[in-house]
Amino acid sequence: MASPSTVPETPLLKDELDIVIPTIRNLDFLEMWRPFFEPYHLIIVQDGDPSKTIKVPEGFDYELYNRNDINRILGPKASCISFKDSACRCFGYMVSKKKYIFTIDDDCFVAKDPSGKEINALEQHIKNLLSPSTPNFFNTLYDPYREGADFVRGYPFSLREGVATAVSHGLWLNIPDYDAPTQLVKPRERNTRYVDAVLSIPKGTLFPMCGMNLAFNRELIGPAMYFGLMGDGQPVGRYDDMWAGWCMKVICDHMGWGVKTGLPYIWHSKASNPFVNLKKEYNGIFWQEELIPFFQSAVLPKECTTVQKCYLELAKQVKAKLR
Amino acid sequence: MASPSTVPETPLLKDELDIVIPTIRNLDFLEMWRPFFEPYHLIIVQDGDPSKTIKVPEGFDYELYNRNDINRILGPKASCISFKDSACRCFGYMVSKKKYIFTIDDDCFVAKDPSGKEINALEQHIKNLLSPSTPNFFNTLYDPYREGADFVRGYPFSLREGVATAVSHGLWLNIPDYDAPTQLVKPRERNTRYVDAVLSIPKGTLFPMCGMNLAFNRELIGPAMYFGLMGDGQPVGRYDDMWAGWCMKVICDHMGWGVKTGLPYIWHSKASNPFVNLKKEYNGIFWQEELIPFFQSAVLPKECTTVQKCYLELAKQVKAKLR
Repeated sequence: MASPSTVPETPLLKDELDIVIPTIRNLDFLEMWRPFFEPYHLIIVQDGDPSKTIKVPEGFDYELYNRNDINRILGPKASCISFKDSACRCFGYMVSKKKYIFTIDDDCFVAKDPSGKEINALEQHIKNLLSPSTPNFFNTLYDPYREGADFVRGYPFSLREGVATAVSHGLWLNIPDYDAPTQLVKPRERNTRYVDAVLSIPKGTLFPMCGMNLAFNRELIGPAMYFGLMGDGQPVGRYDDMWAGWCMKVICDHMGWGVKTGLPYIWHSKASNPFVNLKKEYNGIFWQEELIPFFQSAVLPKECTTVQKCYLELAKQVKAKLR
Repeated sequence: MASPSTVPETPLLKDELDIVIPTIRNLDFLEMWRPFFEPYHLIIVQDGDPSKTIKVPEGFDYELYNRNDINRILGPKASCISFKDSACRCFGYMVSKKKYIFTIDDDCFVAKDPSGKEINALEQHIKNLLSPSTPNFFNTLYDPYREGADFVRGYPFSLREGVATAVSHGLWLNIPDYDAPTQLVKPRERNTRYVDAVLSIPKGTLFPMCGMNLAFNRELIGPAMYFGLMGDGQPVGRYDDMWAGWCMKVICDHMGWGVKTGLPYIWHSKASNPFVNLKKEYNGIFWQEELIPFFQSAVLPKECTTVQKCYLELAKQVKAKLR
């Protein structure tokens, strides 16, 4: 008889979470993630040439969609899914039937914490999503629900229950997620600082949401997680995740849900080409100066009681105020 | 001839910063701080029995005020300085003529960073105060001005200059700054997590400002740093620093200045008695539930162009809306 300790624990949310991976290449990077991802279902969104075959390492449970699949499934609406841009990942969010989504880029590897231990990024995201957020008042010891922490003196007791967490935004060691100008100016900068914290982004505050290492509660916030139309034929690139982040944050603030950032880290292996990036970003650099004040001042009326209603209202305001 | 490397560096802001220490005992704790504090001027505010002699270790440059001094200097207005409460420290802010203040409790010792190096808390506070803050948009890699960090992709370029920093709020290892109920529930909890980050508290967000390990630009925000009247004869204790923090934050948000929290850590040596604390806090626990919504919704008119005007306006609103 096996001793209880040899019975493997069931991975958290095993049947309630899909891992969405946009890619144009063979998914060898999954080998390193095998111990953490293998129990979960993968949704692979193949970008670019649909005739190419993407190899997935053996043992993973997955479904794969290429552009032909997207066109077939969505018909004339397929044009809202970016082509030749990792923003196509949001097609995966749409076809998923699960409550939670974790999405990761295929140039992201397992990072190590300062003790040298490999970080199970997915497990940390799940912990972030399953514990409340505290967007209404800042806790100086960061996540109050974490082992060894709590709310500090002066934190109102009525706010200690927190609110539901909609999004968990993870960070990156090694190659930081910089824009093209910063990449050009600091070509050798690497992120080596492991900041051992998770925190709620306060209500009313916007942040740059990166899609590289991101998890969310699809049932709560899914409809707002549309990654802006980028790539083939579009004037702006590399703002797809930012767009989703700003829309999502305005809606979470309105709905009273929380957004966390911080742990977990992944190891971001390869800097993208700053010249290519500059070409993609060029128009966006001006555009974001307009977008931020717009989203900072966007107010949703109280009739907007669902994410769908919020998103439609926001779309109306975008149309009216952002040309 | 001494080699250049043996010439000691001039400590940062040596003639522009006072260290304010409220105390009721001999200041032996300064021995541990000697390498870091000795070049600076100390303002010691002796609380309680003025006939008692407070011993200050040799070699420190200081002035000391006891209750008799406070009464003599302020006359009838002396009643606005708390007695038998560390809130009396704000008398030190008032008599200082310097641009910057660092205040620390006498049960706070030098902490070590994860590499075992002793942390020069004052130096880190000075760095925090001398570099800008970014309260208008959250940077996911935390302080963008720090070595090895920057603004991430999606951070608007127009906001990268940042704003002047008014306050630097430091944290504590070992004994966390918990309220009495939390102390009672978690008597053995110790803060062992060194979070290697400094961040700007976003505009519009309140936080619990602890006076144990705190620095500020007195020229900018001094008049708002009044620590609420507590101690002898007062119905509430342990909300003096909180009060100052909420007033100060509302005013900084209005004036466009920044407030940082995070590094540096000090080693907080001794938990105060939770039963005594509960007695002091009891009324405050109800009071803060009213205070937070009040401060969260406080709006200062644009005629308030100085901290003094802001504070008087806030006082008016307190009188009108908080009984």
